[in-house]
Amino acid sequence: MRVLGVDPGLSRCGVGVVDGPSRRPVAVRAGVIRTAPDEPVPARLHHLHRVLTQVVADAAPDAVAVERVFFNANVRTAIAVAQAAGVVLLVAQAAGLPVTEYTPTQVKAAVAGTGDADKEQVGFMVRTLLRLEQIPRPADAADALALALCHLNSGGGGAAAGTMSPRLAAAVAAAAPGAQITEGSR
Amino acid sequence: MRVLGVDPGLSRCGVGVVDGPSRRPVAVRAGVIRTAPDEPVPARLHHLHRVLTQVVADAAPDAVAVERVFFNANVRTAIAVAQAAGVVLLVAQAAGLPVTEYTPTQVKAAVAGTGDADKEQVGFMVRTLLRLEQIPRPADAADALALALCHLNSGGGGAAAGTMSPRLAAAVAAAAPGAQITEGSR
Repeated sequence: MRVLGVDPGLSRCGVGVVDGPSRRPVAVRAGVIRTAPDEPVPARLHHLHRVLTQVVADAAPDAVAVERVFFNANVRTAIAVAQAAGVVLLVAQAAGLPVTEYTPTQVKAAVAGTGDADKEQVGFMVRTLLRLEQIPRPADAADALALALCHLNSGGGGAAAGTMSPRLAAAVAAAAPGAQITEGSR
Repeated sequence: MRVLGVDPGLSRCGVGVVDGPSRRPVAVRAGVIRTAPDEPVPARLHHLHRVLTQVVADAAPDAVAVERVFFNANVRTAIAVAQAAGVVLLVAQAAGLPVTEYTPTQVKAAVAGTGDADKEQVGFMVRTLLRLEQIPRPADAADALALALCHLNSGGGGAAAGTMSPRLAAAVAAAAPGAQITEGSR
């Protein structure tokens, strides 16, 4: 099973493609779709729609996993993220793909064993689980891969959060004591 | 100039098409695009995208006026409205149409002379300005027509709010004293 994970955003939208199975996931592609902050919002949404449609066509995933929109203090950012997430849901639906939303806590629990994991820890676990030489940059790309891993780990059907596969559990246990945390500033 | 006004929403998205000029506007079409609340959000956004694209193709407007998303107490509703508004901006951009956002206060000031106007007053003024026999129902359709009128009234270029054409000013003056307010509950 191939999963496209998407960390929605209007300035930076992370995309990551991972092939299953969950016990031996393989990173296919990761990156970020950027739109210019000085462009009008309709043009930026249209650009995101066009590029994401192309990513879906190229990668041909079986499912899409998206970070669920939540609200923070910055209302303008929240609206932009909600609109970007809407475009992601739209593109997935237009391609006939099942799409599942996960909260940040669910994603962190799935890849790092705890919903309290920080960004560095998530990046480290993404690198470990996918056996990458480096933590994918920028952080949005790593977050998108984490979403794809979360979906594979949940059985691909949007199951309850926090259910780790034996491999994930083992990797978390191995990484926990004195693990070297790489910097992961955006 | 033909303007498509859109009052974005996921359950009900109001659309209203008005031909200018501002001093003698003519209602072309008004209605509501509904999506089923029991359907998944991606399917609802896709439905809205499809129907709205068809409305734009059929009506062939020169510009689109959209209500600017603001945030209320209900976070879930706010996210849905933001996502629906994103689809509207996307469809307008895909059709190569200029799109302008207006706040509810700007729309009320443009059609009813005051940003404090209530829904009944807006509906009454939409009926008056467009010389309709009845206030368009549901309220989302009337709000969409009000958005189109607001855009025509602002010169079609997103000018400052509150600048009324002589005709609008006269209509507001005529309607104000003892005007019969029709019920406008949603």
